[in-house]
Amino acid sequence: MPSQRVLGVAVIGAGKMGADHVRRIHDVISGARVTAVADIEAERAQLLADSIEGCTAYTEAAAAIAAEDVDAVLIASPGPAHEAALSEALGRDLPVLCEKPMTPDTASAQRILEAEQRLGRRRIQVGFMRRYDAEYVQLKRLLDSGELGAALMLHQRHRNLLMPPGFTDEMLISSSVAHEVDATRWLLDQEITAITVHKPTASSHAPAGMNDPQFVLLETSAGGLVDVEIFGHCGYGYQVQAEAVCERGTVRIGDERGPRISADGRWGARIPPDYVERFEGAYDREVQTWVDATRRGEITGPSAWDGYAAAAVCEAGLVSQREGGRVEVALIERPEFYE
Amino acid sequence: MPSQRVLGVAVIGAGKMGADHVRRIHDVISGARVTAVADIEAERAQLLADSIEGCTAYTEAAAAIAAEDVDAVLIASPGPAHEAALSEALGRDLPVLCEKPMTPDTASAQRILEAEQRLGRRRIQVGFMRRYDAEYVQLKRLLDSGELGAALMLHQRHRNLLMPPGFTDEMLISSSVAHEVDATRWLLDQEITAITVHKPTASSHAPAGMNDPQFVLLETSAGGLVDVEIFGHCGYGYQVQAEAVCERGTVRIGDERGPRISADGRWGARIPPDYVERFEGAYDREVQTWVDATRRGEITGPSAWDGYAAAAVCEAGLVSQREGGRVEVALIERPEFYE
Amino acid sequence: MPSQRVLGVAVIGAGKMGADHVRRIHDVISGARVTAVADIEAERAQLLADSIEGCTAYTEAAAAIAAEDVDAVLIASPGPAHEAALSEALGRDLPVLCEKPMTPDTASAQRILEAEQRLGRRRIQVGFMRRYDAEYVQLKRLLDSGELGAALMLHQRHRNLLMPPGFTDEMLISSSVAHEVDATRWLLDQEITAITVHKPTASSHAPAGMNDPQFVLLETSAGGLVDVEIFGHCGYGYQVQAEAVCERGTVRIGDERGPRISADGRWGARIPPDYVERFEGAYDREVQTWVDATRRGEITGPSAWDGYAAAAVCEAGLVSQREGGRVEVALIERPEFYE
Amino acid sequence: MPSQRVLGVAVIGAGKMGADHVRRIHDVISGARVTAVADIEAERAQLLADSIEGCTAYTEAAAAIAAEDVDAVLIASPGPAHEAALSEALGRDLPVLCEKPMTPDTASAQRILEAEQRLGRRRIQVGFMRRYDAEYVQLKRLLDSGELGAALMLHQRHRNLLMPPGFTDEMLISSSVAHEVDATRWLLDQEITAITVHKPTASSHAPAGMNDPQFVLLETSAGGLVDVEIFGHCGYGYQVQAEAVCERGTVRIGDERGPRISADGRWGARIPPDYVERFEGAYDREVQTWVDATRRGEITGPSAWDGYAAAAVCEAGLVSQREGGRVEVALIERPEFYE
Repeated sequence: MPSQRVLGVAVIGAGKMGADHVRRIHDVISGARVTAVADIEAERAQLLADSIEGCTAYTEAAAAIAAEDVDAVLIASPGPAHEAALSEALGRDLPVLCEKPMTPDTASAQRILEAEQRLGRRRIQVGFMRRYDAEYVQLKRLLDSGELGAALMLHQRHRNLLMPPGFTDEMLISSSVAHEVDATRWLLDQEITAITVHKPTASSHAPAGMNDPQFVLLETSAGGLVDVEIFGHCGYGYQVQAEAVCERGTVRIGDERGPRISADGRWGARIPPDYVERFEGAYDREVQTWVDATRRGEITGPSAWDGYAAAAVCEAGLVSQREGGRVEVALIERPEFYE
Repeated sequence: MPSQRVLGVAVIGAGKMGADHVRRIHDVISGARVTAVADIEAERAQLLADSIEGCTAYTEAAAAIAAEDVDAVLIASPGPAHEAALSEALGRDLPVLCEKPMTPDTASAQRILEAEQRLGRRRIQVGFMRRYDAEYVQLKRLLDSGELGAALMLHQRHRNLLMPPGFTDEMLISSSVAHEVDATRWLLDQEITAITVHKPTASSHAPAGMNDPQFVLLETSAGGLVDVEIFGHCGYGYQVQAEAVCERGTVRIGDERGPRISADGRWGARIPPDYVERFEGAYDREVQTWVDATRRGEITGPSAWDGYAAAAVCEAGLVSQREGGRVEVALIERPEFYE
Repeated sequence: MPSQRVLGVAVIGAGKMGADHVRRIHDVISGARVTAVADIEAERAQLLADSIEGCTAYTEAAAAIAAEDVDAVLIASPGPAHEAALSEALGRDLPVLCEKPMTPDTASAQRILEAEQRLGRRRIQVGFMRRYDAEYVQLKRLLDSGELGAALMLHQRHRNLLMPPGFTDEMLISSSVAHEVDATRWLLDQEITAITVHKPTASSHAPAGMNDPQFVLLETSAGGLVDVEIFGHCGYGYQVQAEAVCERGTVRIGDERGPRISADGRWGARIPPDYVERFEGAYDREVQTWVDATRRGEITGPSAWDGYAAAAVCEAGLVSQREGGRVEVALIERPEFYE
Repeated sequence: MPSQRVLGVAVIGAGKMGADHVRRIHDVISGARVTAVADIEAERAQLLADSIEGCTAYTEAAAAIAAEDVDAVLIASPGPAHEAALSEALGRDLPVLCEKPMTPDTASAQRILEAEQRLGRRRIQVGFMRRYDAEYVQLKRLLDSGELGAALMLHQRHRNLLMPPGFTDEMLISSSVAHEVDATRWLLDQEITAITVHKPTASSHAPAGMNDPQFVLLETSAGGLVDVEIFGHCGYGYQVQAEAVCERGTVRIGDERGPRISADGRWGARIPPDYVERFEGAYDREVQTWVDATRRGEITGPSAWDGYAAAAVCEAGLVSQREGGRVEVALIERPEFYE
């Protein structure tokens, strides 16, 4: 019988994302509470833990994960720290929600795949939160229904107002386009087999030396063609759009939300400045769904295989971005365990 | 057999509207040419006539209408001058396109109805040009198809950037709402039986003492209810919208046109500043259609009865506006001649 | 210091709405749990209570409200039962979230106002959940900002696919338009002073004898004019729209949501079939916000005064609907307590 | 001084497109009349000529062009016949409006460029009629204004309900994408330097053996990147869209036109079945503008250079389509004559 017990969660990483998840678990969703917070900066961990009744601060992820009142782990530390935390959680057979990227490269991702298979049951969910956005969910449902026939192409736009200092060309692929890589795999239910990164003339509003925007072509296992415009400094807001071209119709999401104003010779509406406003509900649903499934002893979201596959595509993308031309994506054979 | 001959048109009135029709006949549409221009200001008539080869200037409308090379008359003089010009044209059995209002009141309108009936065939078309706007035409076609069932209500919006100096409360009804009065009669194919003019708090951007916006309720012969928001100083552009509420669906026109821009934290599009840009195509189609029908010896557009009915509704509207409350519209019985 | 303790809630009424709130508190929101369920049908109460750990069933609302582990009361029983439950809760100084209508008429509403004032602090929040819908919240914020100048008019549309059997003309006002009555008062921050109900020709798809659609005019204390189309059997879905006409611009909400499909010679998108889908998020936010405020010892949502004022407007609306014409709304003077 | 004389036009080709232009000149636009019609099928030419007063039928294009009452030539015969007719017209120093493609390949296009340069003045306008579509014109104006900064990318969609029998993969490029090739050159004011044609899995609704849809990448001289989705059998209507990605904003055209219907659980609007409905106004404006310019002794539209450049890009596109990969576009140096 699934436990009615409130889930004790250890949050690994007390930075912006970790703190936001702590707030989410405490104030927004039901069924879970934060019992442990870990961060290598002791003060930051302590401050966050103090805001929650019955929550302890740790500087070692492993110690937090090992705490007695911890039933599940949410990893929101920097990518390079993920592998160790994932291994700890798997070692203790705890369910994990791990922010993307699961790990920074395919070698480490493969080690995690193997560890989870050795454990013998799936415990890892990766934080591809677009799968929980209301519009993406509707798009996915529509594609799966077959109502419009097979999806042949996918046009995606991913535009940011501007990027934080230090954001690089490589991060456009591995941090931003990574979302479209997962969305593509999930929406089409196909693996990605090749990637080509195009670099048109850079915007004069991008930092000197940065190739922004870029235009990425993905080829999929059933012959689908997917394009992604990634624009880090579009200058007007955060805009995520996707259009599926099917045999009997097309579907587009991401166009319009909220009040429509007519004023000053224009009609139109606001564009949110960042992903926090645009995808807040998706984050809430992601964590709520993970908590609910975990309490039932199930795993329902993006798996470690999804984390690995995204890493493999982004790795190939970085080669295309650096050297030009089309780069094939080499995936290991998908274990039955992940089917 | 319909004549292939190019139609000679006398344009009565050389003001803004008259000059625009001259340009339209000369530069835009086929099958007609302007052979006479009349205006009480001799110089204005002469200037306009000089711009067209083979066109003569007159100061008397009657003289222009009587000229030998005149096959049809387009009346674009001020409303009070319409009755005389219409009578002249009818006296010579010439087809007329008469700008709205046909005449300024119902008494004169009735005299025109009688004169045309005495002539024994319909010669007058009134310039309700919304009937030629592509979107209105599609709306009309949809309502007539019965696809959505009977139309039960009509919500209309008529917003202007601002009004010219001297524009009065009365003109909001007799000059502006007059368009919706005709659109209502035409779209629903019903007469209007009562009118109520409501005056909410005036906008601080309206001229002192002017009640702007106003909200007009029209009741129709088959029990339909129609509302019109007229806003003379909405401050952001020219916006005309209509929504029909039918038994099985609703239809809205007037929302969106032209390029959609995302910039500065907003998506949206331009709103035209005035009717010239919004309804230019409708004016072109109106005059072209009148010329074509006239050359075939037919009359196809809004009739003198439509001109009369609009005048009767507006007259009642002025009473409601002045005295408050609901005012019934008294129409003479519709002559078979106009059915 | 606000309590971190999880709030024990007694849910009064185990029907459709009550059961949905139980699910919401248990599965969706944080900070509260259902400790008591009351319904006059013992079996229904028991069934619902059994689904929640630590929840007791009652047949008497008073007994549930008096239970030891109850910190707050959510009333979702039929309207006529509200007054007694509200009195019990006030008698025990418990915070209440009461579904609309607060009580079925102004006499009972006034008794509640008095009881709450005697208690000396506000405890009642009424369930006008549109105030928690993301689009309404954005509209309210925009109007309050003054960016577009004063709001002069409000056009509202409230369309249902169809109504349940037994739905009457009166319920179009007191159950459906009641939402727009509250939305009007809240958005404009004005009381409603008069109401006129118009009845155009009924749709042939409405039940025999029912006047559907209806068109309601509301006048507000600062001279605003508000119209509401209520259509119970529009036949195509659930559609709620509002447009504010301000001095420097207009704003519209409720147009578009979700994926846009192009297929079969049309582009467009789905319209939800009912309020559950359309306003699910608003219900979640309403209850979450109430729970959060209650735990802080505060009250933030629509007050008993808002419940009373809506009842007064609807009462006048029923007179206008029955007898025709404009009916003034008589409100008692607003106690300082509610300002 | 520009002639006020009505322009006598010889229409070469009496097929569907030729007959439509005859109707347009006769019924829609002002300032021109059709005085000669030529078609290799005598009966077809005669039938069309008989419908117009003062119009003579010919079976030889050269004879029609040489007729005394011919002031200008409109070429609407099949592409392979264009070169001869263009040479005749140039030989007689007559202005020409030539339907696209100007000639079927770059070799013939270059011969025409040389002939026109020998003549010493520009006489040829090519029928790229999107340059006359209201939305494209607004987009061009916006890009030229610099308001949104430089255009970095262009996303274009070109979808047809279905293609006529016999339509080939090659024609997707040379007949359909040819429009986007010209639109790209015109909108960005850059030449196209390379082309890559991608072929995703074909729709099961495309004819057996046809690769439909295809996805074309164009690179431009200033480093712009342009993608074109061409879908010949999208199955739902005719849909042409373009989105420019600029440094400070994006602009999209082609989304929405006409009445918006809410019915049957969906809101939305009609998609036209073909280009005739969608671009009718553009054709009218194209021919009217050509007639007006010709009467003034000027040439204003797409030149023979534009016809040549489009042919060169399409030729390269056919190589990419056949052999795969990216193909560079080799243009001869642009003569000053065409700048």
